Amino acid sequence: MRLESYVQGRWAAPGTDLVLVRSAVTGEPVAEVASGGLAMDEVLDYARRVGGPALRRLTFHDRAAMLKALAQYLTERKEALYALSLQTGATRGDSLIDVDGGIGTLFVFASKGRRELPNATFLLDGEAESLARSGRFAGRHVLTSRAGAAVHINAFNFPCWGLLEKLAPALLAGVPVVTKPATVTAQVAHALVRMIAESGILPDGALQCVIGATGDLFDHLTGQDVVAFTGSAETASRLQRHPVIAREAVRFNAERDSLNAAILGPDAVPGTPEFDLFIKEVAKEMTVKAGQKCTAIRRAMAPRAQVPAVIDALRQRLAGVRVGDPALEGVRMGPVVGLDQRRDVRAKLDLLAPETERVAGDPDDFAVEGADPARGAFLPPILLHCPDPIRATRVHQVEAFGPACTVMGYADPAEAVRLANRGEGSLVASLYTHDPAAAAEIVFGASAFHGRLLVVDRDCAKDQTGHGSPVPHLVHGGPGRAGGGEELGGMRALRPYLQRTALQGSPAMLTSLTGSWVKGAPVIEAAAHPFRARFEELEIGRTFHSGERTITVEDIEHFAAFTGDTFYAHMSDEAVQDHPFFPGRVAHGYLLLSFAAGLFVDPEPGPVLANYGLDSLRFLKPLRPGEAIRVRLTAKEKSPRNAQYGEVRWDVEILTGAGETAATYELLTMNAMRG
Amino acid sequence: MRLESYVQGRWAAPGTDLVLVRSAVTGEPVAEVASGGLAMDEVLDYARRVGGPALRRLTFHDRAAMLKALAQYLTERKEALYALSLQTGATRGDSLIDVDGGIGTLFVFASKGRRELPNATFLLDGEAESLARSGRFAGRHVLTSRAGAAVHINAFNFPCWGLLEKLAPALLAGVPVVTKPATVTAQVAHALVRMIAESGILPDGALQCVIGATGDLFDHLTGQDVVAFTGSAETASRLQRHPVIAREAVRFNAERDSLNAAILGPDAVPGTPEFDLFIKEVAKEMTVKAGQKCTAIRRAMAPRAQVPAVIDALRQRLAGVRVGDPALEGVRMGPVVGLDQRRDVRAKLDLLAPETERVAGDPDDFAVEGADPARGAFLPPILLHCPDPIRATRVHQVEAFGPACTVMGYADPAEAVRLANRGEGSLVASLYTHDPAAAAEIVFGASAFHGRLLVVDRDCAKDQTGHGSPVPHLVHGGPGRAGGGEELGGMRALRPYLQRTALQGSPAMLTSLTGSWVKGAPVIEAAAHPFRARFEELEIGRTFHSGERTITVEDIEHFAAFTGDTFYAHMSDEAVQDHPFFPGRVAHGYLLLSFAAGLFVDPEPGPVLANYGLDSLRFLKPLRPGEAIRVRLTAKEKSPRNAQYGEVRWDVEILTGAGETAATYELLTMNAMRG
Repeated sequence: MRLESYVQGRWAAPGTDLVLVRSAVTGEPVAEVASGGLAMDEVLDYARRVGGPALRRLTFHDRAAMLKALAQYLTERKEALYALSLQTGATRGDSLIDVDGGIGTLFVFASKGRRELPNATFLLDGEAESLARSGRFAGRHVLTSRAGAAVHINAFNFPCWGLLEKLAPALLAGVPVVTKPATVTAQVAHALVRMIAESGILPDGALQCVIGATGDLFDHLTGQDVVAFTGSAETASRLQRHPVIAREAVRFNAERDSLNAAILGPDAVPGTPEFDLFIKEVAKEMTVKAGQKCTAIRRAMAPRAQVPAVIDALRQRLAGVRVGDPALEGVRMGPVVGLDQRRDVRAKLDLLAPETERVAGDPDDFAVEGADPARGAFLPPILLHCPDPIRATRVHQVEAFGPACTVMGYADPAEAVRLANRGEGSLVASLYTHDPAAAAEIVFGASAFHGRLLVVDRDCAKDQTGHGSPVPHLVHGGPGRAGGGEELGGMRALRPYLQRTALQGSPAMLTSLTGSWVKGAPVIEAAAHPFRARFEELEIGRTFHSGERTITVEDIEHFAAFTGDTFYAHMSDEAVQDHPFFPGRVAHGYLLLSFAAGLFVDPEPGPVLANYGLDSLRFLKPLRPGEAIRVRLTAKEKSPRNAQYGEVRWDVEILTGAGETAATYELLTMNAMRG
Repeated sequence: MRLESYVQGRWAAPGTDLVLVRSAVTGEPVAEVASGGLAMDEVLDYARRVGGPALRRLTFHDRAAMLKALAQYLTERKEALYALSLQTGATRGDSLIDVDGGIGTLFVFASKGRRELPNATFLLDGEAESLARSGRFAGRHVLTSRAGAAVHINAFNFPCWGLLEKLAPALLAGVPVVTKPATVTAQVAHALVRMIAESGILPDGALQCVIGATGDLFDHLTGQDVVAFTGSAETASRLQRHPVIAREAVRFNAERDSLNAAILGPDAVPGTPEFDLFIKEVAKEMTVKAGQKCTAIRRAMAPRAQVPAVIDALRQRLAGVRVGDPALEGVRMGPVVGLDQRRDVRAKLDLLAPETERVAGDPDDFAVEGADPARGAFLPPILLHCPDPIRATRVHQVEAFGPACTVMGYADPAEAVRLANRGEGSLVASLYTHDPAAAAEIVFGASAFHGRLLVVDRDCAKDQTGHGSPVPHLVHGGPGRAGGGEELGGMRALRPYLQRTALQGSPAMLTSLTGSWVKGAPVIEAAAHPFRARFEELEIGRTFHSGERTITVEDIEHFAAFTGDTFYAHMSDEAVQDHPFFPGRVAHGYLLLSFAAGLFVDPEPGPVLANYGLDSLRFLKPLRPGEAIRVRLTAKEKSPRNAQYGEVRWDVEILTGAGETAATYELLTMNAMRG
């Protein structure tokens, strides 16, 4: 089967330079990939000209809904992806991570996009900054969709997850994607793209897929484009040095393999739950996906005294791992992705040999179930031991990207930190300890070198999601060897696809541009109370000035008695004689807030359905009995929630009779639409 | 005078490869710079080994105080910098931007660091994310100081501002700096560094300064280091392509020259204030620093019909600009920085010639006051006109980095956007309009291509800070040709110097690591009320469970009458019959809040001095008359403010009698220290 690229809204396989994709299990050809013949400038142009504008017309909520629909569509069809994945050596458990993990990421971005982003086409970033004492000049940051294409270059190990975890944030950010799967597992990515195209859920041009080599694609990148890469450090480095990347300042987000560490805490001696959790996790990370994970544990560190126990326990555990055809019941580990990959792993093991001894797993002598070891790309789990990790260099630099890991001892937590950081940057490190002090020393000693730090103990043992599993809520990526990039991390994942722009102007102009009232902008006053305006009719800047109310001693005493809040500062002047802030007995903050509501409320049924919250309340000036308050209430922002109602954010100021600011806050109401 | 480098805590000028620095005004040598001879690996090592740890021991507040002290120290000595700057061609007005602008940036970072950052050594980034339904596994992001050095490579045009605006955020972030000034104005940067060193305010190793070439410095960079560059696109691109940058994933933040546009709005016809503001700003940006600003206006765009009027008005205004020795009273524009620079400007003007006509300023015939035009690097303001900017390419790509600008016409706002974006990314564009609709079309059409967008109109005319002036509060940098980097922007400026790490673990472990209580972590209960604990004694997680209080119909009616808040939903069941959220008459949210305070308050004088605010209040379940509430109050975070007291943030939950969550918020109190 010739795998076709999906470009400019159609399927094409014009190339003549053919590569065979072979089954990792049997070595038989399962697909062929044609390279060359695609006009990459046209592919990028189609994304920018057709896909980008279509996506940018949608709001974040629209795009989130689209991701959700896509996730649902794929969920119904995922068995086909499981079946194809067997050829790549993936067990059903492996595919769970790849297929369900990928679809789950779509669901999370759909849900977070809906909950955490406004129903708008751009984001406000931070509050307005006053830039003049007069208040007549201000600045505010906005994030808008880049006008380019997102080029996604994926690794072979997760053809579905890799594609989807990059696709979701780009689309949510309004940027069209050109995805390029790795050739050796392209048949799975191809099937996934075919499903997405058939679904008709995405606008035309939002997703294109280049199967095979990228050709001269990089020559046509511009400063509006974004490259997101996952794979080896060598390839990343080569691509990043393409002259166009620096010349055009193309954003380049890299997630590269790294020598991730698992650290057994000093307290986690044999017999503790943390010791067992460490053994379990190291063995798991060696065998899931036959160790072909950017996040796999390559260095297992233990207090020197525990090294023999660690090796024994891992040996035992690994001995039970059945290697073979991933389609077979009971097989825990399939082959690596192909014979080239196996050769590469063995070459890397040779490089590690001078610094290590092999303590489990013989690549020349192991059992394979249900497949021909001469034709499939099988390896056993291989455990190395490095007796002198301080003097060693390769164990911290050379990665055998397969079912391999090196055990090494450390003298004290400071040395564990030094060894972990000798990896010069990694995606993740995990720590097995129930001792908060040891955890703090290691975590803050290692944090600058690791993108994710997982602390496993008995409290989270049953629920922890695993050393090797990035989660959509948290960033995935690490400094240095790990590539310096960041993916995922909830809405942080959108950042590479958005341009931050600082807007400057008069408060009125900024209000008009951003739809968010900036202090100092003229307010709109009308005879009718603003709570009388339906969602669509309410103008940003619409303001209500309340009447005044004097707060009496009786009010304060009454409020204290009624609520039970008899805090001394409200009860007598004497009690606050030496108080650092209060000039005498003062009114309760909650009394101000309650009276303020009484001053601005519009009692009769109307468009305001409820006050559902309040943000950033600060009491700035205490009020003495006999002082008066009044309220200014200004419509600050609106965000439609559904066809019936929308959220309104009000800027509220409680003023004293003398016009000083006593308190500020933001009030949230739900307002009915005209319907 | 041989300018020495300041490295490893001492002054050194070991180089033998000498470069003369000449006065821009007279051509006379004023200093010499020696290159070579510095061991760059040792310089970086000193930063990482001595400066970094010293800075990281300080909290953000300590570092902010250090910046403030430095700003005060430099303010007292700034006249010496003004005097030296005359040699570089800078007028007193130019130096105001460079010297006072630089010191002002220190002040802003000191003040914002104090107000916006915690008194701690790391930052929390976002809230905790629950990662298991059980609530027993969670994640949270922290930002910690990178363990490397910040290498700052500066442009010649702002030897003080450039050095200080990069220094402030790096030091505030806890990262030591190796700064490398441009050679042609190194005498000014050298004097500044000498002042800083003499002040003794910074810890040893926090600042080193390499005068002359960087030699093999880039060869020794690691993934923990950060390069921040300002200068030409050519140099940036060359440095960014150094193999170590990609190999080690060194952060590279570039701010490059770009062809910034000023756009006269369609409404801003001659006679409007906006027309005059446009003329004034274009002329100013051409002449300030003799046009040698990365942010200067290179392309002045006007509706086609207004082009002749724009050229006339600019001609008139530029005719009044006196060029000469910047030390002379009345001279508005000095020379460019040197004869090489003048040659470069003239060469770029030659490149622009085929697409433009010169309409003002003759580089071969103009008056120079008080200096010898044959020896000083003088140029007149030069205005070009491009009659066909759609077909032209060079006017959008070639920058004459001196007092030069090209006027071009546009047909409609969409064409103005297209032309502005033809610069392929810029630091800033400005727009002169009083029409919000035109502003919106141009701003959102251009936002993805520009790092800053300034809208000038009559409302902000007197207060606007200028097209060419980055402000510390807003980001400085732009996509594409502008380099793709970001500096400044308030606390956003710290980001390149911090590593984001996702921590995962049990809520208890995350609480212990971050000092911020994570929901699900065990709470600490004690007989004494937590409000009895002084700031230092209060444990994170310390919790108070209040008694219950039933809310009666009488309470609601009483509260309504007392506060005046007679909103219909509180007044009768009938009134809310068709309400989408309320099951019947409900209690006021502020009544819940006030009763909650009454339930958790500890009335007698004690360590809690005041409740000064409240964040993120959400009413989640309306309460019907007859239902009871109780409160859980848990100490979430502490941040010491000074020696007398500190801020405590409490996680508060109002529960119904049945244990459902009725409301959540964060309460802020100021707590006394043991003293």
